[in-house]
Amino acid sequence: MIQIVPSIASSNLLEIGEEVRRVTKVGYLHLDVEDGNFSPDITFGMDMIQAVAEHTNAVLDAHLMVSDPLKYIDPLCDCGVEWIAPHIESTLYPSEPLGKIHARGKKAGLALNYKTDVRELEPYFDQLDYVLLQTSEAGDTGLSFREFCFEKIARARKLLPKHISLWADGGITGDILPRLAQCGLDHAVMGRAIFGAKDPQAEYTRLMGMGNAAASL
Amino acid sequence: MIQIVPSIASSNLLEIGEEVRRVTKVGYLHLDVEDGNFSPDITFGMDMIQAVAEHTNAVLDAHLMVSDPLKYIDPLCDCGVEWIAPHIESTLYPSEPLGKIHARGKKAGLALNYKTDVRELEPYFDQLDYVLLQTSEAGDTGLSFREFCFEKIARARKLLPKHISLWADGGITGDILPRLAQCGLDHAVMGRAIFGAKDPQAEYTRLMGMGNAAASL
Amino acid sequence: MIQIVPSIASSNLLEIGEEVRRVTKVGYLHLDVEDGNFSPDITFGMDMIQAVAEHTNAVLDAHLMVSDPLKYIDPLCDCGVEWIAPHIESTLYPSEPLGKIHARGKKAGLALNYKTDVRELEPYFDQLDYVLLQTSEAGDTGLSFREFCFEKIARARKLLPKHISLWADGGITGDILPRLAQCGLDHAVMGRAIFGAKDPQAEYTRLMGMGNAAASL
Amino acid sequence: MIQIVPSIASSNLLEIGEEVRRVTKVGYLHLDVEDGNFSPDITFGMDMIQAVAEHTNAVLDAHLMVSDPLKYIDPLCDCGVEWIAPHIESTLYPSEPLGKIHARGKKAGLALNYKTDVRELEPYFDQLDYVLLQTSEAGDTGLSFREFCFEKIARARKLLPKHISLWADGGITGDILPRLAQCGLDHAVMGRAIFGAKDPQAEYTRLMGMGNAAASL
Amino acid sequence: MIQIVPSIASSNLLEIGEEVRRVTKVGYLHLDVEDGNFSPDITFGMDMIQAVAEHTNAVLDAHLMVSDPLKYIDPLCDCGVEWIAPHIESTLYPSEPLGKIHARGKKAGLALNYKTDVRELEPYFDQLDYVLLQTSEAGDTGLSFREFCFEKIARARKLLPKHISLWADGGITGDILPRLAQCGLDHAVMGRAIFGAKDPQAEYTRLMGMGNAAASL
Amino acid sequence: MIQIVPSIASSNLLEIGEEVRRVTKVGYLHLDVEDGNFSPDITFGMDMIQAVAEHTNAVLDAHLMVSDPLKYIDPLCDCGVEWIAPHIESTLYPSEPLGKIHARGKKAGLALNYKTDVRELEPYFDQLDYVLLQTSEAGDTGLSFREFCFEKIARARKLLPKHISLWADGGITGDILPRLAQCGLDHAVMGRAIFGAKDPQAEYTRLMGMGNAAASL
Repeated sequence: MIQIVPSIASSNLLEIGEEVRRVTKVGYLHLDVEDGNFSPDITFGMDMIQAVAEHTNAVLDAHLMVSDPLKYIDPLCDCGVEWIAPHIESTLYPSEPLGKIHARGKKAGLALNYKTDVRELEPYFDQLDYVLLQTSEAGDTGLSFREFCFEKIARARKLLPKHISLWADGGITGDILPRLAQCGLDHAVMGRAIFGAKDPQAEYTRLMGMGNAAASL
Repeated sequence: MIQIVPSIASSNLLEIGEEVRRVTKVGYLHLDVEDGNFSPDITFGMDMIQAVAEHTNAVLDAHLMVSDPLKYIDPLCDCGVEWIAPHIESTLYPSEPLGKIHARGKKAGLALNYKTDVRELEPYFDQLDYVLLQTSEAGDTGLSFREFCFEKIARARKLLPKHISLWADGGITGDILPRLAQCGLDHAVMGRAIFGAKDPQAEYTRLMGMGNAAASL
Repeated sequence: MIQIVPSIASSNLLEIGEEVRRVTKVGYLHLDVEDGNFSPDITFGMDMIQAVAEHTNAVLDAHLMVSDPLKYIDPLCDCGVEWIAPHIESTLYPSEPLGKIHARGKKAGLALNYKTDVRELEPYFDQLDYVLLQTSEAGDTGLSFREFCFEKIARARKLLPKHISLWADGGITGDILPRLAQCGLDHAVMGRAIFGAKDPQAEYTRLMGMGNAAASL
Repeated sequence: MIQIVPSIASSNLLEIGEEVRRVTKVGYLHLDVEDGNFSPDITFGMDMIQAVAEHTNAVLDAHLMVSDPLKYIDPLCDCGVEWIAPHIESTLYPSEPLGKIHARGKKAGLALNYKTDVRELEPYFDQLDYVLLQTSEAGDTGLSFREFCFEKIARARKLLPKHISLWADGGITGDILPRLAQCGLDHAVMGRAIFGAKDPQAEYTRLMGMGNAAASL
Repeated sequence: MIQIVPSIASSNLLEIGEEVRRVTKVGYLHLDVEDGNFSPDITFGMDMIQAVAEHTNAVLDAHLMVSDPLKYIDPLCDCGVEWIAPHIESTLYPSEPLGKIHARGKKAGLALNYKTDVRELEPYFDQLDYVLLQTSEAGDTGLSFREFCFEKIARARKLLPKHISLWADGGITGDILPRLAQCGLDHAVMGRAIFGAKDPQAEYTRLMGMGNAAASL
Repeated sequence: MIQIVPSIASSNLLEIGEEVRRVTKVGYLHLDVEDGNFSPDITFGMDMIQAVAEHTNAVLDAHLMVSDPLKYIDPLCDCGVEWIAPHIESTLYPSEPLGKIHARGKKAGLALNYKTDVRELEPYFDQLDYVLLQTSEAGDTGLSFREFCFEKIARARKLLPKHISLWADGGITGDILPRLAQCGLDHAVMGRAIFGAKDPQAEYTRLMGMGNAAASL
């Protein structure tokens, strides 16, 4: 089964509160924290996340595309964000943020750029609750899903111990959910695919069904 | 006379579109682009600015609290932002962004951190349309207006040629507008003071009046 | 067959125009752009490249040993450089420069330091026209060709899809061309080996012959 | 056989001279140079090392957890340090420091963070006298030895040519020496385990015995 | 009157505990935290400071010659260090560390490199308990006191409000104490001058007398 | 009197040897070392400078527009460059390179970006043989001489002790030499003005005359 995780960075930024209300029956909401230094673009920071957190009952996960992830961990935990994934490329010592996240009682993950091999995760299996694979990359047309990622996800699933959840983010569309499920993905972050739909909640439900159907093949 | 410039970074981030509609009769809207690297916090980037730009008729000005201002200039101009101020501390060669802004037919300014002396502006008088002084600083309680800035604004006004407009941003409240006007300020960026009011448009009008009254003393 | 690519950074820098005229019958000329930050030394920048480009009919390729490759891509394309290879170590998002090079209608490659494993190229197979392996390294005596690179080239050739051309640069001498050809190399950048010869054009022709002979074994 | 290498960074910093005298019959003393930039913490620099060097007859090895290892090599050699290991993550061109160390007639190694795969060493086999694996990581509780490192050490031993000595540093305690020996380790850096004992010299001798016993299994 | 402040970075590093005991009757002990990145050399970090703090009753002051002063403030306060001075050149937002130091109930200062003009302090008068002027500079022979600093100290004293204490560190010897007192200095950090003496405590007392005598001229 | 200093970075880069021969009767040749990191563009590095040095009898001066000036000082001295000026903005400790240059028996200067105030030189008067003011700036149309620099040069001359020579570089043309001489300039670096002329040697002589004439007014 694939859990769909709507990403608010791709919602209508002028009415994020309303967008969040449009998807009340979701398990998770995904928060892309991008700083325009580690990542090419800027999205939003702690003020936005605090506002969203006070406005939803969904479980929040934060994806830290920033050059200094350590400084965001306490603020995110204070807001009630439950899943936090710094990028493995942003620190020489991933145990430091992972340890800090766990010390606050939250779920800790590592995110990997499209460029980065999944074998780099191996030393951190004992500290990981989840892994988040970036499946598109800046500079590629339309930030679309990269074909290579099917194989990468399958490799990751084979490599990772079962207790580590496998997430993907970047250009995911409904039509590839079945294939992603077959590769072993369990959480798919989706932005435009959901918030670009007329009825995001209905689209979420439809996509959840597709993920489930695929997984039951 | 002091022109009041509402700053949307201090509006209700969950409904920025609505906030912008609440202040339709304003001259300017202020956009704080913060990257969490040059600046301590992250606000928003080009996606948000494009959305706001399509949603308002106000003249937009962007304050670039980022480590690499050059890369934002073309995107901002493409969105129709009219006034753009990179920080003088963020580049060894301020003429480069200023020249680029002017080449696009926009107004070019330099922003100064609270720390930075106004005399540093002197070599750029011939390229400046405006100067933006940061009047509060990270780490100070509540980001309040710093007393020292009254004198700093007065010094700046004395130093700057008349054609260069003088703006300030940070902790400005209605009660200090008269004193700011006496110091020679002509544009006051205000965030919480406006968007924290019950009726932001009415508050804007009231504050505009205060600035005018003060200036006519 | 191995295409020999003369590198002007190793020619007589006092008379580069003359050096270029000495090798009129060559397919390519190689341009090492080194900034002394990503790379240990500084070579030359856009002014030199523009001058060379206006002075030759050879196809030009640029090897970007710089910390910020993105900013050189447009200037290089404007000069008419046809092949451009930034270093994979110089960016977290190689798709960004590769996409930018392709958008300008040029051939896009990635260069790898001696230190870097060829498996890191895998995610970019669909965006690569060529790969450039650095076969010597700073700090090694005389910047000579490293023995380990025979195996590295062979591994790369085995790994890379056939449409991706394989180049090497660093300490290559005529006597190892046969072995390089057997490893699957198709382009050998050579500097001192050519421009250190009495008659660079004749040496080029001789070396081309060696590469061919080797390949036909 | 495992050579035990006492690390003075974990001795009583108020009486390092006395601590060094407590372990006169040792082969080596280990010097952790940490700069709080590459590494999370600061330990000590050249002044301390010169003082220690003048105070002991033990062979000194330096572990350079610093962002710019090149600048420490000459000072370390001048002090008489015999083994020097910069981190492979701290330079794009490891041959540069390795070549510089050899040019001074000293033993050259590369240190690897816990995060880094041993396969990254492959291009430098011909320049390495030893390899130093970090077996704990910042942010992990108590900087204890990480279970994953048993396998990592075994992999490294299998991969490395025999002439390259294999060292480990981080959370090593006496009880795991037998297992480390079986994995192929030949030098174990130990700090608190030795200097936390009542009689560091006796503890050193006991630990040397354990390493030997294990190796002879 | 000039308060003499012995600096342990210039004591015998092999027996710092003993050195501290040699100067039991002093008001302050000075701790130079240098990271080899902001500063040219590395001295020591939090482990050493904690050990010293547990070993002395003197008031401790820390001089943060580091690239990221924020991360050291809490550890220093936890150790009981009473005076803390980050460098003004190491942050764009000095209010941030100053505010953090005050929030922990400690005295907050700013240190200035030899290069930096004292007028840069002006915006922070309301947050400063003291100012620490570096009176020697790396690269100058023997790190001796720079003649220019007599005038700089006098300028600083004239500029600074009376409640801000004025300290100097770098190459200070007993013979210039009278002149420093006349310039308005009130705290002189001295290292080799004290710990290089046969009886550091006696030398401290003698130097205290010189400072007093000078001030009473 | 103004000494004209031809800058080879603005000569015909394809035939630098020939260009140097065209100006045999000059006192100095100016070498702009630019790395594209501290400076916007790349010019050339040590290989070029060594080639030029072996090819001319003129006194060579190097202008280090690089992010790490320290590493170029020894190579430049080895080539026989007599005057060396790192940028004051490129180091927190200017005494370090200045001391290193003097230790090699060469003339030491500091270069200032257009942005930087001449008062920043004050602490280094005792270590300076010359000062080099950048009189144009990146991003300004055509890198032309900035009007503001007449006043800046005059201020510098008034501030600097007589023994310190005052140089300027950037957009200087023959017609402003008289005014520059009146401001107190004694060395004018000129590139295109000389090498763009039909007969660079004749133009040099003519410009030398203008500088002299002006000074004798």
